[in-house]
Amino acid sequence: MLTTNEWDLLSQRLPAWLEDSRREAAHGSPASYIPELAHAPADALGITIAAADGRELAFGDSGLPFTLQSISKVFTLLLALMDQGEEGVFRKVGMEPTGDDFNSMLKLELVEPGIPFNPLINAGAIAISSLIRGRTPAEKSERILAFFRELTGDLNLGYNEQVRASEAATAHRNRSLAYFLKDNRVLEEEVEEVLDVYFRHCSIEGTCRHIARLALVLALNGKDPDTGRELVPRRYVQIAKSFMISCGMYNASGEFAIKVGLPAKSGVAGGILALVPGRYGIGVVGPALNDKGNSVAGVHLLQTMSAACDWSIF
Amino acid sequence: MLTTNEWDLLSQRLPAWLEDSRREAAHGSPASYIPELAHAPADALGITIAAADGRELAFGDSGLPFTLQSISKVFTLLLALMDQGEEGVFRKVGMEPTGDDFNSMLKLELVEPGIPFNPLINAGAIAISSLIRGRTPAEKSERILAFFRELTGDLNLGYNEQVRASEAATAHRNRSLAYFLKDNRVLEEEVEEVLDVYFRHCSIEGTCRHIARLALVLALNGKDPDTGRELVPRRYVQIAKSFMISCGMYNASGEFAIKVGLPAKSGVAGGILALVPGRYGIGVVGPALNDKGNSVAGVHLLQTMSAACDWSIF
Amino acid sequence: MLTTNEWDLLSQRLPAWLEDSRREAAHGSPASYIPELAHAPADALGITIAAADGRELAFGDSGLPFTLQSISKVFTLLLALMDQGEEGVFRKVGMEPTGDDFNSMLKLELVEPGIPFNPLINAGAIAISSLIRGRTPAEKSERILAFFRELTGDLNLGYNEQVRASEAATAHRNRSLAYFLKDNRVLEEEVEEVLDVYFRHCSIEGTCRHIARLALVLALNGKDPDTGRELVPRRYVQIAKSFMISCGMYNASGEFAIKVGLPAKSGVAGGILALVPGRYGIGVVGPALNDKGNSVAGVHLLQTMSAACDWSIF
Amino acid sequence: MLTTNEWDLLSQRLPAWLEDSRREAAHGSPASYIPELAHAPADALGITIAAADGRELAFGDSGLPFTLQSISKVFTLLLALMDQGEEGVFRKVGMEPTGDDFNSMLKLELVEPGIPFNPLINAGAIAISSLIRGRTPAEKSERILAFFRELTGDLNLGYNEQVRASEAATAHRNRSLAYFLKDNRVLEEEVEEVLDVYFRHCSIEGTCRHIARLALVLALNGKDPDTGRELVPRRYVQIAKSFMISCGMYNASGEFAIKVGLPAKSGVAGGILALVPGRYGIGVVGPALNDKGNSVAGVHLLQTMSAACDWSIF
Repeated sequence: MLTTNEWDLLSQRLPAWLEDSRREAAHGSPASYIPELAHAPADALGITIAAADGRELAFGDSGLPFTLQSISKVFTLLLALMDQGEEGVFRKVGMEPTGDDFNSMLKLELVEPGIPFNPLINAGAIAISSLIRGRTPAEKSERILAFFRELTGDLNLGYNEQVRASEAATAHRNRSLAYFLKDNRVLEEEVEEVLDVYFRHCSIEGTCRHIARLALVLALNGKDPDTGRELVPRRYVQIAKSFMISCGMYNASGEFAIKVGLPAKSGVAGGILALVPGRYGIGVVGPALNDKGNSVAGVHLLQTMSAACDWSIF
Repeated sequence: MLTTNEWDLLSQRLPAWLEDSRREAAHGSPASYIPELAHAPADALGITIAAADGRELAFGDSGLPFTLQSISKVFTLLLALMDQGEEGVFRKVGMEPTGDDFNSMLKLELVEPGIPFNPLINAGAIAISSLIRGRTPAEKSERILAFFRELTGDLNLGYNEQVRASEAATAHRNRSLAYFLKDNRVLEEEVEEVLDVYFRHCSIEGTCRHIARLALVLALNGKDPDTGRELVPRRYVQIAKSFMISCGMYNASGEFAIKVGLPAKSGVAGGILALVPGRYGIGVVGPALNDKGNSVAGVHLLQTMSAACDWSIF
Repeated sequence: MLTTNEWDLLSQRLPAWLEDSRREAAHGSPASYIPELAHAPADALGITIAAADGRELAFGDSGLPFTLQSISKVFTLLLALMDQGEEGVFRKVGMEPTGDDFNSMLKLELVEPGIPFNPLINAGAIAISSLIRGRTPAEKSERILAFFRELTGDLNLGYNEQVRASEAATAHRNRSLAYFLKDNRVLEEEVEEVLDVYFRHCSIEGTCRHIARLALVLALNGKDPDTGRELVPRRYVQIAKSFMISCGMYNASGEFAIKVGLPAKSGVAGGILALVPGRYGIGVVGPALNDKGNSVAGVHLLQTMSAACDWSIF
Repeated sequence: MLTTNEWDLLSQRLPAWLEDSRREAAHGSPASYIPELAHAPADALGITIAAADGRELAFGDSGLPFTLQSISKVFTLLLALMDQGEEGVFRKVGMEPTGDDFNSMLKLELVEPGIPFNPLINAGAIAISSLIRGRTPAEKSERILAFFRELTGDLNLGYNEQVRASEAATAHRNRSLAYFLKDNRVLEEEVEEVLDVYFRHCSIEGTCRHIARLALVLALNGKDPDTGRELVPRRYVQIAKSFMISCGMYNASGEFAIKVGLPAKSGVAGGILALVPGRYGIGVVGPALNDKGNSVAGVHLLQTMSAACDWSIF
């Protein structure tokens, strides 16, 4: 397949595909468990595709700002790996999908030794937040934000303070998870300090363009798309992509692997980061979620594109 | 059976039975999850029996002070029933044994609507703490302590501050439970405020004599053993006794019902409250616990006594 | 309370109470998982009370024949205890309520050593069926039927062959349980042979009068109501009554203990066996079940009676 | 990397790598739950690599015959997809990893609608066996065997009758799963008939060479390595490879994806099928299993090779 032709195809067909997928949004609704997220426009849908050669496509509501939420977990995992090495990280989190809800506590109670099954479920991502280097929560958060700014090349990237405050005020289930982890000696720090770091990186706000750029760095195995400089060691990107395939789309990751076949990570604000290895970074946003917590329209659009362009890695 | 003869039998045989049971303590060990409890004398064993007619027997380490821990849950349940009525209480906790560990979260996650299965498991007792009337945690705690002082007739009854502080500092699993309950809207108050009430009543300190007196009030269906005045409505005592049979001895309640057959409640400091309806209140202490969390020697002694005196209610 | 007055009260008030309770049947429906049971009259309600002194009361549809179903499990437990002793029985089943559905497999998989938690859930009752003495399934079944005939004094007691065949043909969940037990080495016999015994005793058919008589034997601690002869050792009856309190009403046993307070056992054909220790055996039938599997109208009637006569053992 | 050089590297280094990995076998032991498998040589280790260009490498115990066991599940899935289409298959099995043991029943009971989470766990593979076209179990088995013969090009491929009989006689857990599925209406056929098909394809016996050939067909997206003819539609191979990544190595699939990064499927006889897309099919055998059920030495060898040749698809 000629990349040139594919780019033309995408340029021409994406507007129609996007409108088709936007109609799917009616089958879902924005997340309500973080009050601030419930206000998002339910039928919004936007996409940005960033190619390795620097070209970019953007359609629909690609300029809509949204918080990264769980998408950020891929990058805190990478930073934790850079800070602690594989051994340091995998002492605290496992490598397996769970088959349970993203905020489930079942396996923490039922399966020895009570560490989170993987770094992308909530329990695992909270454990990862505690592994980021820094003497204080503020220092950890600064390092995480700096990492995101470096990867996106946007020095103005910042938090959505309302969303952060909304989540911090209502995230009792995450507190429950965190105290369970502390009881299991997975967390050694103060729970509220770890959660402060966690809520903060979940509330980093960007647009599809930021997500596409983050995805492109992963698609290029950690290299800066402009300069070719290594931003993240390739081995760690490999680990992240592996988790994105097995656990990136919550409890619908297996289905997404079959139907789309790309490493991806979704967030409850409706964002999806996906990548075509070596070629594209993709950012999608569509706030209406299905019952698994993934953007209904976003998944539909990615499936349409992957099928048309034969992108599955399988 | 003549009560007179039974009292003589108990008077004569209890010292030997107690030493037999004390040897069983070697099969257990004091609770370690609350650091302060780990220091308790592992082979201590004491008993006090208070009869409806005012007589009393005490043997072994009956003067050893210990914290009530879960034994207190029977009485916070009673006070919550007096404060909120049956309907108010059973909106927040169920009536069923769980078959799971006392600090398990499984059923909160798996079984709708996510309220604790009963008031004697940790989750349920925390919910009950929130139902005690009082504008502040301090006021709730004062009312609970006053209730215990009234029932025991000991105006000096108080807290073991070291144990309370030790538990408050390390009870991350209980915090996890409490935040889960808050997420499930079972708790509306601040978690740390509810837990303050909970840790405080768990740390009320007494001896076997206090426990025997508390048990005697229940054995007399809520009546003051000295004056006959109603301290607790009979209906609520009935409810409490029912829970003591089905859930009073943690996950060995069924076995205890078969082997001993008396309403009872154990605590992780090694105390057991048991009662022979209409006749006796019994307080036992033996800090070495079995793997279900009950006093090894205490259960053994109660089983010996119940068999010899044919006390089973079944 | 004078028994004479109580009997008069029951004689006079039961017809009205029964009609009140019958109206509750509308909130439930007959079991559908055994096809033959679905045909039962949904608004039937009958009761027989057999007193220790030989008097008997019967109202409503007390003559309606129904299969014992799970009520039979109390008596196969007794026979297994008589055949194998306590030690032999409790090697294969535990003593604890489960908090799970009566046909659940969760604890068999999750809790070592994988024996059924108690003899009244399906898994436990199947294990008990295997413990009945007899060289062949037919011989075991004959001994069970003979035991029921002896206890009821009705030599014509027999099976409902349609119900037995209907259950045998559709009981895939019980087969699943039985093979799980065989894999866990709880069952050593052929699964279909054990299940044949199990389905057969579940399909023994009687009326409220049979149930009341069975209950009266238990109320009299195993003694024949007419002759005073010991039909079952008292110790085994004690064990059975203890299980009836903690697990007799499926997953609503705790609620029943609080609201009715009598040892009881229900069956999915709508029968309930209940007893007032030392005084009455009670048989109730009302085919419409609630979501816990107990007769809606039957539970309501027993609650009315127990409250009016202050029968709770607590 | 030049393929020529890689082939030379493999040819030269594999003997030493194999002996290194063979030493790892001491950390595991052959499966014991199928009695016949327990006799396998614990320290055996063999490998065959079949390249797309027809070249082949074989080292160690590559000629050791072993039964495919769970490796066969990939191919019954393919045949079921060819027989029933995607829709027909995914009505009966899901697409998600479970995080539970391969023979677990938890999710069948806990997660609606009670279909197996994926086709590679036992419950799912049993459901798949029922989907193979054929009027009788014998006809289904013949079609499966014919499919394997076609893919391997070995018309003599057959069953190990001892292993089949051994498994059929002892597979009570699989019977339990199958009856649960029947109760959940996932299976409509007779359980023993479905299991006969299942046990039979698990007992197909081959050597590493057969496995390597099967893997090469998948590596070539369903094309015959010799003729280029389509043996399996590419879409179905894609589905199979996706499952192999997310669920192919039991509950260590996530770890295998991170450490090896190749689509693979293991069996309890110690076989592993792995593939390098477009290039190689690999068959490994090493009967000593780790606690997840995968060949200890086999996984070690694949990890060494994948790292040295940079084969991860991530």
